[in-house]
Parts: sequence; structure tokens; C-alpha cells
Amino acid sequence: MNVELVSVGTELLLGDIINTNTVYLSKELANIGINVFKHTTVGDNRGRLLRTFDRAFNSSDTVIVTGGLGPTDDDITKECAAEYFGRDFYLDEYSWQKIQNYVSKYNKNNVITSNNKKQAMIPEGAIIVENFCGTAPGIILEDNGRTIILMPGPPREMKDMFLKSIKPYLESRSNQKFISKYIRFYGIGESLLEDKIKHILENQTNPTVALYAKTGEVLIRVTASGEAVESCEELIDEKIKEIEKIVGEYVYLIGDETISDSQSELPAVVGHLLIENDLTISIAESLTGGYLTSLLVENSGISKSLQESIVSYSNESKIKNLGVQEKTIADFGVVSEQVAYEMVKGLVEKTNTDIAVSTTGYAEQNFENNLQVGLVYIGIYYKGEIFVKECQFNGDRNRIRDRASKEALNEVRKLILLEE
Amino acid sequence: MNVELVSVGTELLLGDIINTNTVYLSKELANIGINVFKHTTVGDNRGRLLRTFDRAFNSSDTVIVTGGLGPTDDDITKECAAEYFGRDFYLDEYSWQKIQNYVSKYNKNNVITSNNKKQAMIPEGAIIVENFCGTAPGIILEDNGRTIILMPGPPREMKDMFLKSIKPYLESRSNQKFISKYIRFYGIGESLLEDKIKHILENQTNPTVALYAKTGEVLIRVTASGEAVESCEELIDEKIKEIEKIVGEYVYLIGDETISDSQSELPAVVGHLLIENDLTISIAESLTGGYLTSLLVENSGISKSLQESIVSYSNESKIKNLGVQEKTIADFGVVSEQVAYEMVKGLVEKTNTDIAVSTTGYAEQNFENNLQVGLVYIGIYYKGEIFVKECQFNGDRNRIRDRASKEALNEVRKLILLEE
Repeated sequence: MNVELVSVGTELLLGDIINTNTVYLSKELANIGINVFKHTTVGDNRGRLLRTFDRAFNSSDTVIVTGGLGPTDDDITKECAAEYFGRDFYLDEYSWQKIQNYVSKYNKNNVITSNNKKQAMIPEGAIIVENFCGTAPGIILEDNGRTIILMPGPPREMKDMFLKSIKPYLESRSNQKFISKYIRFYGIGESLLEDKIKHILENQTNPTVALYAKTGEVLIRVTASGEAVESCEELIDEKIKEIEKIVGEYVYLIGDETISDSQSELPAVVGHLLIENDLTISIAESLTGGYLTSLLVENSGISKSLQESIVSYSNESKIKNLGVQEKTIADFGVVSEQVAYEMVKGLVEKTNTDIAVSTTGYAEQNFENNLQVGLVYIGIYYKGEIFVKECQFNGDRNRIRDRASKEALNEVRKLILLEE
Repeated sequence: MNVELVSVGTELLLGDIINTNTVYLSKELANIGINVFKHTTVGDNRGRLLRTFDRAFNSSDTVIVTGGLGPTDDDITKECAAEYFGRDFYLDEYSWQKIQNYVSKYNKNNVITSNNKKQAMIPEGAIIVENFCGTAPGIILEDNGRTIILMPGPPREMKDMFLKSIKPYLESRSNQKFISKYIRFYGIGESLLEDKIKHILENQTNPTVALYAKTGEVLIRVTASGEAVESCEELIDEKIKEIEKIVGEYVYLIGDETISDSQSELPAVVGHLLIENDLTISIAESLTGGYLTSLLVENSGISKSLQESIVSYSNESKIKNLGVQEKTIADFGVVSEQVAYEMVKGLVEKTNTDIAVSTTGYAEQNFENNLQVGLVYIGIYYKGEIFVKECQFNGDRNRIRDRASKEALNEVRKLILLEE
């Protein structure tokens, strides 16, 4: 199967939004062994869309289009696809009912316009693909070995539809199985990891091994193909063992989930460790300013573990809520091992949780002492012991806050595993 | 001038890297009034590249290509462009000297290979564009009113070359100025906004008015063109006033900055309002779990305003730290107007800040009462008064948390402005 990806939307041509759909679909399709031949982005323009279909089918048999399924008059993707295959439209009552329900539930003003009805108009002979996150249904049109697949442009809707419906549809058309597993690393850089497993990267055939860098993390995808799931999995597990032998100490997760939008799985891993081990945690954040807690709260069920979190951004709050000594701040500075220590100590006394974490650091240029940007102290209490880790991160304000939060999570992860 | 952007590289088709060059160039070109007709991404393949040039010149007069200028044998963009216009190559001594210097300075092993020489080979009659950040020079080829511009693929090299050389080259071919301003809205959906300013959207010439939806927000770009900056700005200001007359109550920012990657400017606007007005704030978060505070902490200088923030995720913490009555939780449920009220009341008593904010809500399916997902109460204290806002959001856990945090920020913004 050869695929061309077509993104529709004048806003893409104006550079107003970044095209994340293309990279997502390319990666997902590569994972199931589908060859993406070309990416094209066109505006909401009938002539150009029709010519794009024409040209795409010269070299591909399947065209996947995202965008242009909205309710406004600009949105003409479905109309063009139907015209291209010579199909008329009918009103699909189920889709229309769904759109009405959706609009009356979520739209503030509850006005259903005639434009909304446009989204329930379906080309004859199309496979209708349900949209669980919005109003525009997806459409699959088949015509003499050529297929046009239409999905909505908003990434949230598109991804959900792809995973639930389009991916299974595409997989059903192939008899090769493609299985991937992902190894997530924390605490090792891309180039060092690449260097350490160079012989594996250079001699790969089946499974393939690909390395990806993310913010502060690296990820390896191992993909095997074959006729049976079991044999693919065997090949993968063998390769993963080989990699773990070399760099296993940096691995924090091996899983078969797809890659989420450049997000770290560290918060989920730590969240589950806390919940499964019945451990309570409390957090006192200075420079990270609620971000560390927010990462943990991404996990459902975390209320069982997360007893309390205080953003002690000001000195006053550190003194009042955590019992940090004024003298300690005066003597050592608010970004110091001593303050991180007293923050975590005060927090434990107050909350009596199994684990307590504190952060203090310089997230950006500090004019009194401009050499210390990125200097962060992380205090951790566990089983009667307190230790403080000194770190030096680089990047802008938000990057430093992100790195500090992840580092704290990773320290918690390592401590819990040590005890298991 | 009509432009097609062509990105070359098999790694783009595999989804291994995200194509940020296209969004960057599209935005920059739109800002100087250049019409981007189409984006195309192709692999490093001679036949497909030549066909891409052919097709592109059907509708465009200028093709800007990024990628495929590297030293390896895969990189064939320059060779294809020269072939397309029937040009031979010569060795450019200046480029060759520069490449030798660059490699000996920056490359680890200092080996200059014959492949490096390939990068100094220039098509006859080309304008050579210096690369200040890498080895591959840029190339401009003109042929009977058709232009091919080649730039390196690495974003850092491409952006530097674009700003220093390609943008001035393109501007010199036009005497028009283009100026844009952006209006940011909160609290009004895309379709309602579109409806309210339909007459403006339909009758636009100069300035143009374009509408974009983001997560929970809408944005309008107003762009004017003319021979002088002043007259452009006058046209824009007039149009903005016209729009404000209709939907001014939803506008939270008017600025001339370019749009950051889908980020909201609301945290920055509220942060500045707090700091400029010398207002202190404290926050008690339940479902938002530190995310609301974290958004505020993105602002440097916020330590002056942000006195305290507590993540009271558990009932126990709400009772212990905020003085919420056990009976209130038992009688009304933890997600209730009454609990949001008591949270904010307890917070003010504790912190005595000018403003206090609380959040409580269901971020995801609650099995005891599955009808209430997305139900959120936001409590706000300001100038002796407490009020609680009830909201219903949709989406997944993190989307609901994001929407609730932004809604709270917007309420704070409105309160402060009301007082000014």
C-alpha cells in the first residue's frame, strides 16, 4: 500500500499552525509497515484539491486527507472527494442526531445552524467513521482500488479516530503484522546512547531499532514484522534484552503504547508506582511552581497518594508553611542545599507522608548572581532519610522547570524501586 | 509572487522529525505578503523531485526548497535543480575554502572527505548564499521568470540564511509593506465569533481578517498592505476598532507579536496585570492539581504576587488546610459550589491576599455519578466578595484541567480590569 498524506487548510499555508498531524500519521503508518510516498499541504480550494487527488493517485493507491471537514463554507474537502469519485450526498440521520446532541450539550449558545447539517451529509457508498471527540464524522471512499480517507483536522479528533477506526481498517488490508515496543530512557543523552548501542543500530534488519530524542529523554522503538504476532514479539523481546544488557540502568519503561505527543511517560510511571505501593507523597515546590504536582495529577487515582502539595514560591511561604529558618535563607541563599533540606523536613513534619519532595532553584537570569541560572536543589524524604540532589540544567525558564520536575520524579522512581 | 514550499527528506516521510521549516517559512512569507500556494514533502529521489519542480511551476513562479544539500550521496536537491534548469557545475573556491575551515574547526575527527567538496559545487549562473551556521551554501537559480531557492534543511541554518539573505532578496522583488496585528479572544467560540463578524470576514480586502481557533481560544489576524508602514497601521487600527465594537468584551489581548506555537497568552496577561497592579494572589487547586499555579509561574517576576498555592487534592487536605467543613463535603459533595466557596474562604483567612482562587471539579469519568464529567466550580475572592462560577467543560482529563485553569485566569483578569 502506498499512501500520500494531504493536509488541507489555508491556515497551514500561512504558517499559523504547525502541522503535527503529518508527523503523527507518518510515524503511525511506518509502524504498521505502510509506505508514505509524499506529504502535500493545500489550501481550501476546489481546483487545487481535485488536482492533488489526481496527481496523488499517479503514485499512490491511498490518499489520507486531514482537515476541511468543519461546518463553515470554507470547508470543502468532503465535497471535493465526493466530486472526484462522482458521488452524490445523502443526509445520514445518525450523524445528524449526534451533531445535534453534541452542539446542544457543549456549545454555550446552543444554536444549531444549517452549517452543522453539512457535517452530516455523507457521500453515497462511503464508510462513515464515528468521531468520538467532535462533530465531523470521518469518511472512507473506495473506488476501483483507489481509497480516499478523510479525517478531521483538529489533532485530538484525528488521533482518536485514527487509533480507533482508521488504523484497524488499514491493518485489515495487509497480511503482514507489525509490532513495536518502546524503551524509554531517563538520564542518558542521545549521543551517548547512540554510541553505546552503535553496533545494534548499524546491523539492524528485523526487528528495526530507531532512536528518538525528546526533552530530557530518549526513546527507542523496536519494530518487528512477520506473519504471526508471537514470532514478532519473540524477536522484539530478544532485541530489548540485548539493549538492556548495555544501558538497562537508564531504562524507566518498556511498553507497547504508541508515542504520545512528545510527552514523557515518567509522570505515569511514578504515579502508578505510588498508587500500587500504597505510598503517600507530599510536595513543596518553589521554582517548579506547581508543575511537578500537575504532572502527577495527570494520573487518575492519584488522590489516594498525593496528600498535599504546597507551592512555596515566596520566602515568606517557605518560612510560614514549611518552617524554613529565616537565618538559613539569609546565610545560604534561598537556592541552596540547606533550604531544600529544611523545606522537605518541614513538609514531612506537617504531613507525615511516606515520601516528601521539595524543589528550589533559579529558573532564569538572576541579576544578583547571574552564574547560577539552572541551578536546582531537589530534596527528598523517604523512610526516615532526607537527601538533597544538586542539579545544573540549561535552557529557558520553562525548560528548566520541566527538567527539574522530571528529575525529581525520576529520583522518586529510583527510590521506590530500590525498596521493592 | 506565488510560492510553493518543497521539503526534501525521507526522514520527514517516516515521521521521524517534525517539519518546522514549513511553518516557519509560511509565517514569514505571509508576513511579507507572499502567497504560499502549496507545501510538498518528497523523499530524496531524483524522479520525484524533477516532477515536483515541473508541477510546482504550473501554479507558482518561485519554488523554495529546504533539505538535501548535505554532503552524502543521498543529498541530490542541488543536482536536481541544476538539471531542471540545464546548468553545469563548477567548483566555487570561496565556498570550498569555507567548508574546509568549518570542518577542521568543528568536526570531531577533522577529516575532510570528497563528499564535502560536493557542497562547494555550484550550478552555473547561480546566486550563492552564504551559510553562516553550517557548510552547505544556499543557492538561488533564476530562469525566465521562474526561481528556485535552495536552503539547507537543519532549521537553525535555514532560519539564519532566510533572515539574513533570502528574505531581503524576496523583499527586494516587491515594494509593498505588510503589517499584521493579532486580537486574542477568550470565552467565545469560533463559530459564534465568525457569525458575529461575518460581514467583516466576507467583505475584507485591505486589511485582510483571518480567524483561527486554538484550545479554548480564538485568534484574529488583521493584515494590511501598502507602501508605507504608517498607512498600514492606520488601516489595521480602524479595523480592530470595528471588531472591538462588536465583540470587544471577549478580547483579552491586542498585539503585533507573531503567534507562538498554539500557546495561550492568557497566563502572561493575567501575570502582568497582577504584577503591575501590585495585587497579591493565593490559589487552592483541587482538580487542576497545580496546573493553574504553574501557568502563572511561567511569568517571571510573579513571586511578588503569588503568595501561596495549595494543591488540596484530597478531602483531608481541603479540611485540614482550608477549613472546609466535613459536613459540607458530606452534604453537597466535594465538587460543589459550597466546597469551592469554603475553599476560597479558608484560603483568604489564611493568606489575606487581595485575590484568592479555588477550583474543584470532575476531571474524568466518576463511577458514582458519571453524568458530571467536566463539571467544575471556580471560587474567587476579591475586595471582600466571594463568588463561585459553575462551568461544564468537555474533553479528556488534561483538557478539562486546562480549560478550568484558563477559565479561572480569565475570571481573575475580568475582575482586575473591572476595578481599573
